Amino acid sequence: MSFFDIVLGKPLRSVDERAEHIGPIAGIPVFGLDALSSAAYGPEAALTLLIPLGMMGIEHIVPISFAIIVLLGLVFFSYRQTIDAYPHGGGSYTVASENLGDFAGLLAAAALMIDYILNAAVGISAGVGAVVSAFPKLQPHTLALCLGILLLLTLINMRGVKDTGVAFLIPTYLFCGSLLLVIGVGAVRVLLAHGHPVPVVAPPRLPPGTAALSLWLLLKVFASGCTAMTGVEAVSNGVQAFREPTQKNAKLTLTMIIALLMVFLAGIALLCRSYRIAATDPNGPGYQSILSQLIGAVLGRGWFYYVAIASILAVLALSANTSYADFPRLTRAIAQRDYLPHVFIIRGRRLLYSHGIFALVGFTAFLLILFGGVTDRLIPLFAIGAFLAFTLSQAGMVMHWKRNPGPGYRNRMVINGVGALATGITTVVVLVAKFSEGAWITALLIPLLILLMSAVKKHYARVDRETAVTAPMDLSQRQAPLVVVPVDRWTRISEKALRFALKLSDQVQAVHVDAEDCGDQVCDEWKKNVVSAFQAANETPPDLILLPSPFRLVLMPLVDHILLLEARNPDRQIAVLIPELVVKQWWQYFLHNQRAQLLKLLLLVRGNQRIIVINIPWYL
Amino acid sequence: MSFFDIVLGKPLRSVDERAEHIGPIAGIPVFGLDALSSAAYGPEAALTLLIPLGMMGIEHIVPISFAIIVLLGLVFFSYRQTIDAYPHGGGSYTVASENLGDFAGLLAAAALMIDYILNAAVGISAGVGAVVSAFPKLQPHTLALCLGILLLLTLINMRGVKDTGVAFLIPTYLFCGSLLLVIGVGAVRVLLAHGHPVPVVAPPRLPPGTAALSLWLLLKVFASGCTAMTGVEAVSNGVQAFREPTQKNAKLTLTMIIALLMVFLAGIALLCRSYRIAATDPNGPGYQSILSQLIGAVLGRGWFYYVAIASILAVLALSANTSYADFPRLTRAIAQRDYLPHVFIIRGRRLLYSHGIFALVGFTAFLLILFGGVTDRLIPLFAIGAFLAFTLSQAGMVMHWKRNPGPGYRNRMVINGVGALATGITTVVVLVAKFSEGAWITALLIPLLILLMSAVKKHYARVDRETAVTAPMDLSQRQAPLVVVPVDRWTRISEKALRFALKLSDQVQAVHVDAEDCGDQVCDEWKKNVVSAFQAANETPPDLILLPSPFRLVLMPLVDHILLLEARNPDRQIAVLIPELVVKQWWQYFLHNQRAQLLKLLLLVRGNQRIIVINIPWYL
Repeated sequence: MSFFDIVLGKPLRSVDERAEHIGPIAGIPVFGLDALSSAAYGPEAALTLLIPLGMMGIEHIVPISFAIIVLLGLVFFSYRQTIDAYPHGGGSYTVASENLGDFAGLLAAAALMIDYILNAAVGISAGVGAVVSAFPKLQPHTLALCLGILLLLTLINMRGVKDTGVAFLIPTYLFCGSLLLVIGVGAVRVLLAHGHPVPVVAPPRLPPGTAALSLWLLLKVFASGCTAMTGVEAVSNGVQAFREPTQKNAKLTLTMIIALLMVFLAGIALLCRSYRIAATDPNGPGYQSILSQLIGAVLGRGWFYYVAIASILAVLALSANTSYADFPRLTRAIAQRDYLPHVFIIRGRRLLYSHGIFALVGFTAFLLILFGGVTDRLIPLFAIGAFLAFTLSQAGMVMHWKRNPGPGYRNRMVINGVGALATGITTVVVLVAKFSEGAWITALLIPLLILLMSAVKKHYARVDRETAVTAPMDLSQRQAPLVVVPVDRWTRISEKALRFALKLSDQVQAVHVDAEDCGDQVCDEWKKNVVSAFQAANETPPDLILLPSPFRLVLMPLVDHILLLEARNPDRQIAVLIPELVVKQWWQYFLHNQRAQLLKLLLLVRGNQRIIVINIPWYL
Repeated sequence: MSFFDIVLGKPLRSVDERAEHIGPIAGIPVFGLDALSSAAYGPEAALTLLIPLGMMGIEHIVPISFAIIVLLGLVFFSYRQTIDAYPHGGGSYTVASENLGDFAGLLAAAALMIDYILNAAVGISAGVGAVVSAFPKLQPHTLALCLGILLLLTLINMRGVKDTGVAFLIPTYLFCGSLLLVIGVGAVRVLLAHGHPVPVVAPPRLPPGTAALSLWLLLKVFASGCTAMTGVEAVSNGVQAFREPTQKNAKLTLTMIIALLMVFLAGIALLCRSYRIAATDPNGPGYQSILSQLIGAVLGRGWFYYVAIASILAVLALSANTSYADFPRLTRAIAQRDYLPHVFIIRGRRLLYSHGIFALVGFTAFLLILFGGVTDRLIPLFAIGAFLAFTLSQAGMVMHWKRNPGPGYRNRMVINGVGALATGITTVVVLVAKFSEGAWITALLIPLLILLMSAVKKHYARVDRETAVTAPMDLSQRQAPLVVVPVDRWTRISEKALRFALKLSDQVQAVHVDAEDCGDQVCDEWKKNVVSAFQAANETPPDLILLPSPFRLVLMPLVDHILLLEARNPDRQIAVLIPELVVKQWWQYFLHNQRAQLLKLLLLVRGNQRIIVINIPWYL
């Protein structure tokens, strides 16, 4: 087993593909981590904005959470229908571009790419942020920790989907289990205490309110709370990853994820109100997260508290994983329509679209470095992309049913239409509420990405047009090429090049650029070693051409000579033989070939269709 | 005129070389800036170590300065003789390797390379340090300023030696002039006041002494003061840059530089004693440099003070320039003996050894970044290299006279012998006195560099041995190569490759790796476009070989196939035609050719002498 085999797993055959597919049990960690972990920061983000209202603010979290849950329900029904209609994976991109046209598709593609990258960055930075608040000594290493986790996730994901599922199974179910337990026990206590439970560990006291309630504030709270919904679309995009019956398994997984998330959001909101738990200032001393207060209030600070907190940390850090599962699938779908480089289509040794993973890791690392791994600075960029994609996907589904009217298609149109309207309004709310805090970056990136993808598409279309074959091959004009052999000194390397040249053509010329005043020496060696051999065989030797070089440049006179030769022989191809030393150690590379590489580059840049470069390798 | 012409000047012909040569007036700034500017930090470094002795310490600067001046005199006579003996440039490297053998030469080479790089780094950081003390707001941008000046110097130097001389003429002579004026006026005042002049602006009061005098302290003071001698060897290394009569001009330049430096060192020492000027703590508040105190004491703080201070700043920052003039000459000399990569021999468009400049800039930037642009941390690494080179050069000259006994050679041997002994002892003193403060880094780097250079030499020797031609060319075995054309889809690009293949050989095979299950399609296109054309011409079409690829890898099956073909045809060469798209915009590069580049790399790494790669460019 090679090093790569051990780290990344053995390569997989195409025929093994089925075996890599997963069921709902593994599907929840793989496609649901993102959505479920949002419960750990969505309510917190909303409650933080309510701090200025003091104890009054807590009252408002319940209606806002229920608004989000209703929205989540609409999105759920909408995506169930998408899974039905697109058994091969109907992410927002596919649905929007197939039903609303290319531009809507690109809009969805750009929104989703940004969303997945931000999800990876936010997940990692939130996890590291939690670890760092537990161990403040690690504070200076925040960014290094973020990048380390990014690397770890990448290695795990390069092993493939199934192994990934196993790796994330335990923390996910630990997280869901503890949260459900806390909510269940809390609910019973609230009922027994007739709505006024006594907390085991009392949450910190709230400072008195300093601001008045306003619609604008509630809108911002709603916008922040909506981050709890990010990641919901993952399942519909990855239907193909499920085992047979594919659609049924996918829908079951989606149902379980959404149900869990709804229970979490409702439970957290209701318990916060009953236990009088409010957010604390994340930048002030004595900061404590909502979930930490809640677990302490319901079950105290025993061993269970630490298990639950650890599972939250793990799930936050690992929620980035959804991006690893979905981003490469998305870029592949986009690349298949020629809007992204074709490397995203190539599957690697473990049946993954490796280049998509590389791109995701690169951009995530860039974001983490740019924002220093600080979650607070990343969050405002976040929800826009997700909600834009929701909207486009559901609007696309409306068109889908309109075009494919089946039984009950009107009801389906209404469901998707309501979803589209609700998420569309939410998109506008989030954009306006968070514009100045960072949403403008996303709003700027989306059109830039669209421009980029259009340019890629245009380029591929042009290449296809230019290289399309319209007629059978033309077999005329099969004269051997003119061959040029640049000679610096006469060595076995130049001898090998000349010998190869003589195999290709009987019109060969050696060219020496006389930049270092050693032309005479080269001529002597040429006569002694080449001309004599040809004379002995009664053949005409090839010409040796000496090019003067007043500026001591070696390459430009050579390139000029080749271009002149090409211009004078419009019916011939010119082959230039460039010897290259192949070295064993990397550092030896710096000792050779600089001129050869530069010559190849110059010939490519200044040359044309009729100039061919031939590398003659010399192995030391 | 192109952008490069404007920034770097027009390219120069080889025959214009004479015109680029300089006389003593331009020679002093070009080769003397380093040595002369040392007067601004050498005495300061020595006096700083005397601070603990209080007012008593000032007495000791005079004998120590005179010891340094005597040493400078010995070195001066020694280098004059070197210029006589080596009219084409006799740097320490040349002298040591020609007279003391390869190892001594490498030792000198390593010492000098480190010295030149450190000189550039220290010059820039000292200049920036002075600017930053004048404008404390710039403090956080120290490193950026250092790198900016490095870039500026690089651009100036890429224009060539003559332009450089002009650019540095004014600050150098302004510096020398103001220092001479201060010393002259000061000397007259001291004489008129019978040794007790009244300062115009009184220097700061010294704190009382806290330490006792010790020999160890005096040795350290001497070692620090010796940094004033760095840069003295520049002229003898660059004799060739002077115009006719070369040696006379070089010696005149050397004499003037050394004389000026001696006057500066003696004048500063004597005036400091008479005016009771001591160093102030460079890290404490109210720090003021020795020269600033001296100018203020002699001539007050009028406009002249500011002109003089500005010229010091300029000269310090620009003293790095000596490294630009000499480092590339040194690396060229070393590369000519095969101890460094040959790129250092190539002269660029402005008659400069551009790669030497690139290397200097790279290493200097590295040092500046590593030490944050702080002079104090760089200084201890500094003088070792210079004195080691002095010693080796002069020891080499002793051997030179012994081997070439001419008139008066015994006297010459004695002069060089005394010089070698004195600088040899100084080297040991500096190494011991500054070992723990950073000289150990230099002491470690020198053997590392020697190992590196030996490895380079060994590699080049091996390549020369392996590629040397021993017999006239063998003209047998001129069978055309077997040609392999990898085909992905049938496009005009693959058509062009196949057409070229048919020109080279009549044994051509097209190979398609069936990784994406489109083998049938390729076969159909092949039949329609290729086979039909050959049948129409009554010829046998080339084979199309389909390679299965269970792991979906495209390249490995192809490489394996080519290696197998090579193994089965031990008497033939295999030519592999790789089509390459040539794109117009850089970003389009990311859309194509990734597989072509990887295939070339794989064929180079896994291939052998008989596998030749042919690039078929396709211009869009």
